[in-house]
Amino acid sequence: MLLKGLGEERIIRDLEKRFALAHPRLIKGIGDDTSVTVQKAGRALLATTDVLIEGIHFKPDFTTPYLLGKKSLSISLSDIAAMGGEPLFALISLGLPSATKKKFLDELYRGISDCAKRFGAVIAGGNTSGIKGGIMVATTVIGEMPANEVVYRSGARPGDTIYVTGTIGDSALGLTELKRNGIKSLSKGPFKRAASRHLDPAPRLRAGRSLASKRLAHSMIDISDGLTLDLDRVCEQSGVGAIIELARVPISAEMRRYAASSKKDWARLVLSGGEDYELLFTSSANLAEIEGLGRKTDTMITPIGRIVAKGGKGRLTIIGLNGKTIKLQRLGFEHF
Amino acid sequence: MLLKGLGEERIIRDLEKRFALAHPRLIKGIGDDTSVTVQKAGRALLATTDVLIEGIHFKPDFTTPYLLGKKSLSISLSDIAAMGGEPLFALISLGLPSATKKKFLDELYRGISDCAKRFGAVIAGGNTSGIKGGIMVATTVIGEMPANEVVYRSGARPGDTIYVTGTIGDSALGLTELKRNGIKSLSKGPFKRAASRHLDPAPRLRAGRSLASKRLAHSMIDISDGLTLDLDRVCEQSGVGAIIELARVPISAEMRRYAASSKKDWARLVLSGGEDYELLFTSSANLAEIEGLGRKTDTMITPIGRIVAKGGKGRLTIIGLNGKTIKLQRLGFEHF
Repeated sequence: MLLKGLGEERIIRDLEKRFALAHPRLIKGIGDDTSVTVQKAGRALLATTDVLIEGIHFKPDFTTPYLLGKKSLSISLSDIAAMGGEPLFALISLGLPSATKKKFLDELYRGISDCAKRFGAVIAGGNTSGIKGGIMVATTVIGEMPANEVVYRSGARPGDTIYVTGTIGDSALGLTELKRNGIKSLSKGPFKRAASRHLDPAPRLRAGRSLASKRLAHSMIDISDGLTLDLDRVCEQSGVGAIIELARVPISAEMRRYAASSKKDWARLVLSGGEDYELLFTSSANLAEIEGLGRKTDTMITPIGRIVAKGGKGRLTIIGLNGKTIKLQRLGFEHF
Repeated sequence: MLLKGLGEERIIRDLEKRFALAHPRLIKGIGDDTSVTVQKAGRALLATTDVLIEGIHFKPDFTTPYLLGKKSLSISLSDIAAMGGEPLFALISLGLPSATKKKFLDELYRGISDCAKRFGAVIAGGNTSGIKGGIMVATTVIGEMPANEVVYRSGARPGDTIYVTGTIGDSALGLTELKRNGIKSLSKGPFKRAASRHLDPAPRLRAGRSLASKRLAHSMIDISDGLTLDLDRVCEQSGVGAIIELARVPISAEMRRYAASSKKDWARLVLSGGEDYELLFTSSANLAEIEGLGRKTDTMITPIGRIVAKGGKGRLTIIGLNGKTIKLQRLGFEHF
């Protein structure tokens, strides 16, 4: 069945039923002109929006509607994680060609819904529209946290250690593989986990919240456009420089295998590949305390370098495996 | 100059400068992973999102980038008005083909910025991405109001009078004219004001806020998909029926002229034409009090019918000029 046979009212009613989740803070979800939530004194409100556009951010050949739904929400949740917050609710806007199948929409919603449930967000509204051209999913996530715990990009201080969660570059490796072998890369071939990292990234909400509540992070960002570009943003906003060592950047077993197969671009994938949705943060706490937090939140956390006073030329120094400075053509993914 | 020559960082920096407006509630606007706002006890938080898609909601031949920017924000502000709230801040996501001219983006931003300033909203974040296909503007507006004053669609009671602000059907008339004569309909021809109503609708924030703060409205909605469809939504959610009289629905001088020129579809434009962004509300207050509020907020307010107990067949009764019931093929605009 195609969407054009359904009509908007039925789509909205379907949404209302599917997302009719109770949340103590939500007075009204889908079905009025706006959602309505209760505000709480002393809490900061976090708001972020992202868009996934067919042909730019995803290709239907490379993903499934279920995973597309999950990812559309996950990447906005990752922004909430990067402030140290927790999600409250989300608004979803869809642009769908009229030839879209009902089955596609159902799967997309199922992905969104599973992701929302897993991370404690409620779908509180949105809208669905036709579109000429490809599919478009726009997500807004509203989160919150104690107002005095928010971790900005601008708080890095010389002497801070730079940490990242998880392993870096897998998403870009996965994309390379997906481009070569399509969606079957998820179940077959040497880079299944990397493909999954690209299509189904997990927002680091537990680690982010924990770092903020314990006041351990001076600055934080999620790695969406590449390790070096996102680190450079932290440096710019903090008025500092940074030195990182490629040898210390944690990489996965699949990336090690890829690098060993004499692929020269592995360092580029690690340093500039985007969409890992890991957290990068800076801290002056001792390593043991950070490692303890990592164990408690089930998150691998690795030091990769340090923040320094603002240098003369270039904010970023990247030391390669041979001990020499790496010059990058460009830092990371730019959307134009 | 084309966008692809600019790069995302420059676009974001340009945005930061343009929208660096102070707001006592905004701690952090554009430039971090999320915006950060202070929450206030006793206030309800309102959130709404809308998308304007080229070829579906607008055509570049019929509008200007400046008016497109204004409208993209106005229609979300109208949702805030329909709850009785006031805007706090907005997030804007753009999907722009790489061949988009810098001049287009500047004008779009100028429209968004002018609209935000006029209605007291701050642009607090968003993102810009390439797109295959047409232009896409997604807007999220966050508003607020005293928690005990929110006006829902669901509060209409039998005996309530049904009111609308402004005149109805102009936007649909304007669209008809724009389709015939293009953007010059705004400056030339018999339906200039109607064309302007379509391209540059004004959210009824003052009237909505005032109705809510004085507790005069039992239910409220903005007329985005057509008078009858939006009234039907109020009836459905309130579990009531409604009777309206076409003769009492306020129409503009241009619509009267259009109707007099023997155009048979004028009633359809008034009853089912969408995008007027006027408010429809129901109230048991006396007419004089409502009229007083209208004068004070500089808003024309007209009674057009009444809420009745739920009837047997159909929730809506529309009485035509000849005193007979009108049967509509469909109530209003549906997006598929």
